Amino acid sequence: MAPAKGDKNVALSNMNLERLLSMKGGKGEASYANNSQAQAVHARSVLHLLKETLDTVHLEDNPNITFTVVDLGCSCGSNAINTMDVIIKHIIKRYQDLGFVPPEFSAFFSDLPSNDFNTLFQLFPPLLVNYGGGVSLEECLAADNHRSYFVAGVPGSFYRRLFPARSISFFHSAFSLHWISQIPESVMEKKSKEYNRGRVFIHGASESTGNAYKKQFQADLASFLKCRSLEIKKGGSMFLVFLGRTSPDPTDQGGPGLLFGTHFQHAWDDLVQEGLISSEKRDDFNIPLYASSLQDFKEVVEADGSFVINRLELFKGGSPLVVSRPDDGAEVGRALANSCRTVSGVLVDAHIGEHLSNELFSRVARRAASQGKQLLDQIQFFHIVASLSLAQSRSQNF
Amino acid sequence: MAPAKGDKNVALSNMNLERLLSMKGGKGEASYANNSQAQAVHARSVLHLLKETLDTVHLEDNPNITFTVVDLGCSCGSNAINTMDVIIKHIIKRYQDLGFVPPEFSAFFSDLPSNDFNTLFQLFPPLLVNYGGGVSLEECLAADNHRSYFVAGVPGSFYRRLFPARSISFFHSAFSLHWISQIPESVMEKKSKEYNRGRVFIHGASESTGNAYKKQFQADLASFLKCRSLEIKKGGSMFLVFLGRTSPDPTDQGGPGLLFGTHFQHAWDDLVQEGLISSEKRDDFNIPLYASSLQDFKEVVEADGSFVINRLELFKGGSPLVVSRPDDGAEVGRALANSCRTVSGVLVDAHIGEHLSNELFSRVARRAASQGKQLLDQIQFFHIVASLSLAQSRSQNF
Repeated sequence: MAPAKGDKNVALSNMNLERLLSMKGGKGEASYANNSQAQAVHARSVLHLLKETLDTVHLEDNPNITFTVVDLGCSCGSNAINTMDVIIKHIIKRYQDLGFVPPEFSAFFSDLPSNDFNTLFQLFPPLLVNYGGGVSLEECLAADNHRSYFVAGVPGSFYRRLFPARSISFFHSAFSLHWISQIPESVMEKKSKEYNRGRVFIHGASESTGNAYKKQFQADLASFLKCRSLEIKKGGSMFLVFLGRTSPDPTDQGGPGLLFGTHFQHAWDDLVQEGLISSEKRDDFNIPLYASSLQDFKEVVEADGSFVINRLELFKGGSPLVVSRPDDGAEVGRALANSCRTVSGVLVDAHIGEHLSNELFSRVARRAASQGKQLLDQIQFFHIVASLSLAQSRSQNF
Repeated sequence: MAPAKGDKNVALSNMNLERLLSMKGGKGEASYANNSQAQAVHARSVLHLLKETLDTVHLEDNPNITFTVVDLGCSCGSNAINTMDVIIKHIIKRYQDLGFVPPEFSAFFSDLPSNDFNTLFQLFPPLLVNYGGGVSLEECLAADNHRSYFVAGVPGSFYRRLFPARSISFFHSAFSLHWISQIPESVMEKKSKEYNRGRVFIHGASESTGNAYKKQFQADLASFLKCRSLEIKKGGSMFLVFLGRTSPDPTDQGGPGLLFGTHFQHAWDDLVQEGLISSEKRDDFNIPLYASSLQDFKEVVEADGSFVINRLELFKGGSPLVVSRPDDGAEVGRALANSCRTVSGVLVDAHIGEHLSNELFSRVARRAASQGKQLLDQIQFFHIVASLSLAQSRSQNF
């Protein structure tokens, strides 16, 4: 990727956003593979709710019908594979408890084409030798370093169609649905009242900017639900976990607000004040993330009508920062900078080039280091957990 | 990947072979993306036979049944995508000619996990806006920079199961089935009479070594057919193109023999004579490729019995070297070295390290340059083209 020169003011177009957005690939210090422990902890804390949703999926007594699971926004670490393992084993157990012979299983791991699928594919354990239908839970557990499902990677945006109609038994998506498909055009438009002047995120932005983000999130979610309602099989379910907020106000983004609205924001301001970039260059950059309220989400699901809500809750997910010495300000600073860089580094590199990106994130680390303890206490993420099933009325159309 | 040190004599284990074997990724001089023009020409020359095979696939008058196509050994260039486009359009036309509404299409691109799927995924054109069933050939042609099928990448060896039972309508594999799953153990065993002493390929090797390769090819092909016979739908077909030879003798490999048995062989001998590697180091390296005779192939298909042969022919595929100035020895030399490196470079790098690998391929280029014209005249590839359909007797089991 050619680095954009400091002051040329080439805004990241929304076309580019879809091509670029990804967690940092490979295995380096700021890679997703090495910075997804917090996501792993959060995923474990809602496993009982995932299993509860799996129990709502209708199972058929026919070993010839493949059970198909999709992970949407899989990224390139092992979290997606670990969760898939839990899902498949739980469903095999359900088949056995019902006295049915388990069918074959197929797992699709989907993310944007910019995701590092090569790294993900290297992490898959080998398929069980002579895998076929009828593999029991006991056999799966006995061969724990093998997988008991076929795999495929699917590049594409989950705001559009990804799978054939009526082909998926269960959708899972963790920590992805808060990524909006694009920065609303008005937020990028200098003359608009929704222009996000002075800021790189909506936390603390104007009410107009906040509402533009909310509108984008809701339009994206509506597309998501429409596509999934076509792709899901009759009797299928969906389990979604994504960043949520406690405040009804979109410009109070909570934990993500602290992550991208304080030290990260001030580091951008530093670059402007030091003359390394123009203020427009900063203002043209926006984090395409929206932590939703329960109400924001519910409105869209109900308006769409394809899915019934089995459960919809806001959970305290804890801190995104994993540190071994909470009293060591420098370590906390580095952890915050790595967290920011893992999720936004690819976009920042494209916007200001790798050299200035290094400058930016070293300032994030330095600024955060001075308030390490306070930061650790304050930065709390909340997650929306949603369990949805295809509505009966929709099933009858099939 | 840590380069193996020159004389440590660490043979490439067969476990590693599956992890490593891949066409060269990325977009550099020796990358597959930039060295697959010959394959593109060969693929075009058998298009009429591909279409003939597509005409044998049974189509149902039910737009709710997804038509599923697999490319096995897709590598990371655009050839696989171009061929998929031909396949989907031909099948849509057949649906229309039969007066049926076309269903949705799903395309799986499969290769070993070491394949550069990231590069492949960047090459996919975007999905047609609002894609669904019932898209006509006219609509496809009108939106020629879009695809009218869902995509997925499947990492794994085609000598094992890759897909759920009875899920695939059509299998396509071009220029891949000549890669054997492993070097026969006896060929790597110093005390065995099948040890390939003095050589890095079976061209010109002993009869025992040749037969060990043949046995491996036939065992691999038997596994391939067994897996595909389970995965294919009733009424499904398979189109295979892979390197073949005209001689009944396995140690006369024809074009691939010239590619890996002459200048490439002599460059390895140079490294030994110059004391850069030991002779054992050279002898422990073997190209895992086998150009089959029609008879070798036919024996296995008939013994397996799952498929009937609609067509089985040996075609003169032409030269693997694409050069703009055939009289320029240096260009021909570079083309040969790039051809060798594209398909064997990853294995060579792993065996002797990148530095010695550079030494090796520069010697290949230099040696070949001195006989450029002669080389171009002599090096001809033959391809086996096989059209197979699931046997009725097997279909009835489903």
